[in-house]
Amino acid sequence: MNGAESLVRTLVKGGVDICFTNPGTSEMHFCAALDRVDGMRCILGLFEGVVTGAADGYGRMMDSPAATLLHTGPGLANGVANLHNAKKAMSPIVNIVGEHATYHIAHDAPLTADIEGIAWPVSDWVKTSDTAQSVARDGAQAIAEAKTAPGRIATLILPADTAWNEADGVAEVPDIPPPDSASEGAVRDCADALRSGEPCMLLLGSRALRADALEIAGRIAVKTGADIRTEFGSARSERGAGIVTPDRIPYVVDQALALTNDFRHMILIGAKKPVAFFAYPGKPSVLIPDTCQTHLLGAADSDVLGALEWLADELDANDVSPVREELVRPALGSGELTIDKIASAIGHLMPEGCIVDDESITSGRLLHPYTKGCPPHDWLFGTGGSIGRALPDATGAAVACPDRKVLCLSGDGSAMYTIQALWTQARENLDVVTVIYANQTYAILHGELRNVGANPGPKAHDMFDLDRPNLNWVQMANGMGVDALRVDTAEGFNRALAAAFNSKGPFLIEAIV
Amino acid sequence: MNGAESLVRTLVKGGVDICFTNPGTSEMHFCAALDRVDGMRCILGLFEGVVTGAADGYGRMMDSPAATLLHTGPGLANGVANLHNAKKAMSPIVNIVGEHATYHIAHDAPLTADIEGIAWPVSDWVKTSDTAQSVARDGAQAIAEAKTAPGRIATLILPADTAWNEADGVAEVPDIPPPDSASEGAVRDCADALRSGEPCMLLLGSRALRADALEIAGRIAVKTGADIRTEFGSARSERGAGIVTPDRIPYVVDQALALTNDFRHMILIGAKKPVAFFAYPGKPSVLIPDTCQTHLLGAADSDVLGALEWLADELDANDVSPVREELVRPALGSGELTIDKIASAIGHLMPEGCIVDDESITSGRLLHPYTKGCPPHDWLFGTGGSIGRALPDATGAAVACPDRKVLCLSGDGSAMYTIQALWTQARENLDVVTVIYANQTYAILHGELRNVGANPGPKAHDMFDLDRPNLNWVQMANGMGVDALRVDTAEGFNRALAAAFNSKGPFLIEAIV
Repeated sequence: MNGAESLVRTLVKGGVDICFTNPGTSEMHFCAALDRVDGMRCILGLFEGVVTGAADGYGRMMDSPAATLLHTGPGLANGVANLHNAKKAMSPIVNIVGEHATYHIAHDAPLTADIEGIAWPVSDWVKTSDTAQSVARDGAQAIAEAKTAPGRIATLILPADTAWNEADGVAEVPDIPPPDSASEGAVRDCADALRSGEPCMLLLGSRALRADALEIAGRIAVKTGADIRTEFGSARSERGAGIVTPDRIPYVVDQALALTNDFRHMILIGAKKPVAFFAYPGKPSVLIPDTCQTHLLGAADSDVLGALEWLADELDANDVSPVREELVRPALGSGELTIDKIASAIGHLMPEGCIVDDESITSGRLLHPYTKGCPPHDWLFGTGGSIGRALPDATGAAVACPDRKVLCLSGDGSAMYTIQALWTQARENLDVVTVIYANQTYAILHGELRNVGANPGPKAHDMFDLDRPNLNWVQMANGMGVDALRVDTAEGFNRALAAAFNSKGPFLIEAIV
Repeated sequence: MNGAESLVRTLVKGGVDICFTNPGTSEMHFCAALDRVDGMRCILGLFEGVVTGAADGYGRMMDSPAATLLHTGPGLANGVANLHNAKKAMSPIVNIVGEHATYHIAHDAPLTADIEGIAWPVSDWVKTSDTAQSVARDGAQAIAEAKTAPGRIATLILPADTAWNEADGVAEVPDIPPPDSASEGAVRDCADALRSGEPCMLLLGSRALRADALEIAGRIAVKTGADIRTEFGSARSERGAGIVTPDRIPYVVDQALALTNDFRHMILIGAKKPVAFFAYPGKPSVLIPDTCQTHLLGAADSDVLGALEWLADELDANDVSPVREELVRPALGSGELTIDKIASAIGHLMPEGCIVDDESITSGRLLHPYTKGCPPHDWLFGTGGSIGRALPDATGAAVACPDRKVLCLSGDGSAMYTIQALWTQARENLDVVTVIYANQTYAILHGELRNVGANPGPKAHDMFDLDRPNLNWVQMANGMGVDALRVDTAEGFNRALAAAFNSKGPFLIEAIV
């Protein structure tokens, strides 16, 4: 077998059996090997940001990597923004990037690029295979790197001749180091703070946002009287009725500071000290007062669940009942469509097990209170701030969980970056309902202008508005094979969402707000 | 004035008065400054690949840089693929990339990224301003770098506090070093080869493809009996009736080798030794035989026109008449639409002064013979091999040359990468006719599969085909505000193209081939 086939067989044997692709000439032998190897499903994206975003969504839901297949430096570059998001989400991904044959690189052909240089800013591990014999071993190492907790981006660069030359065979994935356990000192320090009688907040992130960890954190909160919150942007939160479902730290700096001002201790559990998304003149970067001390129970790459169990033992909090959400759904709205009424409809209608992929930006800040009493569901949020994430992420989540409904919420501005994802949803008949908040503007930027103290005129505003011409989402979705409907009343939205939840396959709702 | 305003004023004073933008929070003060400074036109793109591709097209037509305004590392990353193309085209571009405030970077907020690391693979010059006082000077240096012949990519990273803090004022663009003159040794060496009586080829690239340089090269060819060719991918060729219009070196390796096999000397004039786009098993990387000696008259970054004049003097070739193209147009076709009939229609109808932005890939390999007898026009070709170039490039070319018709030719696969360019064309009412060769496949990859000796099955083919579902280009264009028509007969195409050439504003023709 050739190097490409040895890699595909190594991936499948190592449990990486989904490959999101946008291949080119350098990846031909990898593609050809797909027909000789059972067990690898390849899914085409028409733009690489779709490919890497889908791998992010897949990794978030599976806790195990998909592969991507990308064409040389520029193909990787097109996927970098969503790899940035994936790296901040600590999603596991194995990138395979085709490169010129080793002997061709020196000739500076048009596609010659510094692929490792492009890869490093968004990768935890990068390697260029140098011979066909090393490809399988390098691929196995990439899987191990990607699977290292909580999840990492491994990028393997595959020169064309290492793909087409004869290889030795398949490689085994090496042992993956387990995550670090909490230290006794850290557990004691956190327990002391929680017993101090001073106001404490538990701040949860990453693995601490799964239902089992939330349950323990909820017990600790009840036992000690601590408040409990999550990071603003979390890769995946299990939440809803029966689950401990904390609120998020607010995005807006003044709101966050008002919240944290009274606390003297913040216990970081799979979370980092909260910082402002952006700096603003005269406002602090760190969202807690100097009078609040932080205590790290365990970082995101440690055994967060084990640390919580240990802390609960230390605090004798195991027999306490946490505050779980009650099953409560909001009523449906009527009349003019507003973002509140969209939130109500989502809260009223969301099916159990739904995966909500949320890039609704300003339009979605009301969603959390309206949905926390819904049946259990997952919420995927932006972690890296690069927009154009949700449509691809939702695509990957739907591949990962074919029996669950995916609800993708996107601002119109955000959705335009990676709109090609709709075609992949149509091709694979993925069960994704996309709601576009069509406000014809980068709404967040109007607020940010004020926040940074800039004084905008009409030319500046023109750079933040998407009207002139208005986008027609129904036409664009139809053009890529996805059925769609435009609605501008609450009743219309309610009907469209109910119908979409009650059928299978991709559907898009253009919500005029 | 603040740092942002000092930069905008420096750009305008330095002749950079077009800014293609996709801004975010970090760029607010730059946007706000636009309303206080006359003379800067900002053009919004809904994806950064549109922004950088438009700057490439603008730079190719103007020989002077536009600015781009991009949002932090991921925003730059989305523009990297078309910056790769622009760098290989040696287009002048000044990128302005917003960054977190200097003091905020250490806090690792979501958008924190290694911006310099992302910039370097596609930039000739990168700098991060460290204070508001240095922003104007750094901006002036960026302009000088971008304008250094033949054109370079300068990337200036602007932390938010350097934009909002008080600055000193406007800076002058420093002196730009002139391009190197040819050496006497190089001119003599080339002249000796051309006088040797052995078969010689003049290979032209970059600045040698403008009409004045082509005229001189044409005289030298007639005087010495040398053949004359251009590189396969050239950033901008002036060609057509009355102009010396050489054929290109073929893309296909065997065809290129068959052409070059009989030559003993190749004179490189603004061109590099021709190499294969990709390596293929058992085929060489370099497209000339060992028996052919190369002679560098002048590299692309040297004074190519001056070198040609000197060589013509040396060869006493100034009184010779070169072979200029005759005005000859093909007849219109009829019946079933084919790529030949599209080429005929373009050749028959193309208006004088047309700018053809060509990413037609396999569908367009016939275009050159059909169009070389058209009235004078410019042809913009891919230089970096990253697809998704033509729609943005055409957008920028239309901004640069509002009085000229732009004809954008794109494969359907290519156009999907940066389809958002259509919206910018609609917003700015740009005079661009886009022809989509809708063959529902990455057609080139079927050929490449055979070329690399891979043996594909149905799963591999599925990764190269864009059917299931078919894309509807009329709906997608309409959804972004661009009128469009689908045609599947030669008569229909002829009518649609004639109508588009005879009206102003953006229009898209979906050509079913």
